[in-house]
Amino acid sequence: MQILPVAFVCLFLAVITWAQRPQHCTSPPLLVGSLSVLGPKGDLGAYGKYTYDALGRRVRFFEVGSYKNQSFQVDLLMLFREGVLYEINWQNHTCTKKALKDHFQPLEVPKNATLLGQVILGGSSGFGQGLLVNTWAGEVPEIEAKYMTTFTEFGCLPVSTLYHTEKTGWVVLSYFNILIGIDDPQVFFPPPFCQSAELAGTTDFFGAFF
Amino acid sequence: MQILPVAFVCLFLAVITWAQRPQHCTSPPLLVGSLSVLGPKGDLGAYGKYTYDALGRRVRFFEVGSYKNQSFQVDLLMLFREGVLYEINWQNHTCTKKALKDHFQPLEVPKNATLLGQVILGGSSGFGQGLLVNTWAGEVPEIEAKYMTTFTEFGCLPVSTLYHTEKTGWVVLSYFNILIGIDDPQVFFPPPFCQSAELAGTTDFFGAFF
Repeated sequence: MQILPVAFVCLFLAVITWAQRPQHCTSPPLLVGSLSVLGPKGDLGAYGKYTYDALGRRVRFFEVGSYKNQSFQVDLLMLFREGVLYEINWQNHTCTKKALKDHFQPLEVPKNATLLGQVILGGSSGFGQGLLVNTWAGEVPEIEAKYMTTFTEFGCLPVSTLYHTEKTGWVVLSYFNILIGIDDPQVFFPPPFCQSAELAGTTDFFGAFF
Repeated sequence: MQILPVAFVCLFLAVITWAQRPQHCTSPPLLVGSLSVLGPKGDLGAYGKYTYDALGRRVRFFEVGSYKNQSFQVDLLMLFREGVLYEINWQNHTCTKKALKDHFQPLEVPKNATLLGQVILGGSSGFGQGLLVNTWAGEVPEIEAKYMTTFTEFGCLPVSTLYHTEKTGWVVLSYFNILIGIDDPQVFFPPPFCQSAELAGTTDFFGAFF
């Protein structure tokens, strides 16, 4: 007859412990922010800004950088609901419109990611000196990549992602200056010179970047 | 006669602007914390804990990791005031004592580092979701390395350092779980089995790690 209370206490403790562990989480649906990309051999460096709308399933992404001493610039508008991607060239005022193969991928800790641990970036001895984050690891079979990704414990905001493929080595993405909300919803309108663009080929989310 | 007030206002604005820019800073003199190391090809991964005493010019550093699928473990005690380094082997209860060639290097933004920028890791829309940091870049001629290092704006705590040499590629060091102060000053006492160790060779700070 004493087994039941003991089992109940054990179950209660198990639930408490489980609840204290970081949970797979999804970022807020509306975000603006910046990111930097650094390649393993120092031959890739880039800085980008994005506007992210998980409600409308659309992303605008602008990036400048250099790869093997060649500078580049990309401006992508991804409208997953319509299934199209615009590559916008502001210098020539031209537009390449492609069909987007895959579905919208919300910004989240992937469901199959494994928790590596929870740490405080910086420290916790003084106010404003640290950030509580969770780091997760996993694989993306589609591009044969391993990754480690870090999200804030409070707010579930991305902090960094390290991708590794045999081809690229480790690529470090750092996310920063994130604001919840969207400052200008018009970034999701294709510019006027894109109106006449015809579908030219197909791409997917990763294909648009690599 | 109107030039003087205008010049004064300009000088005042210049001082304000200069004062708002992040300054080269030095970390608090007593720290404990953890770090992780990741090599560019995924062949180096390590986790370490350190106790740092800039007042006594001494560092204790313990690390476990794997390099090219070989696991390793190091326990270093660096006493810069005495000019000695102990490599402690707890399995065999043996000690290697070496002369330390170089001076104590405080944890700081190097004097010749150039400010790359100030960002908020994560975001600033919610409490506990972001960390204000400054990123600096520079070179270490002694080991022909480039680096990018990030410190917190408040408290001047290290957050991450990316080192690059031709030999190693980019190596990512992340610092976390830092506390100001030292929990156990006895970590700077060599273990009893080190007392009889004789000086065997010379090393420097970088040589002890690489």
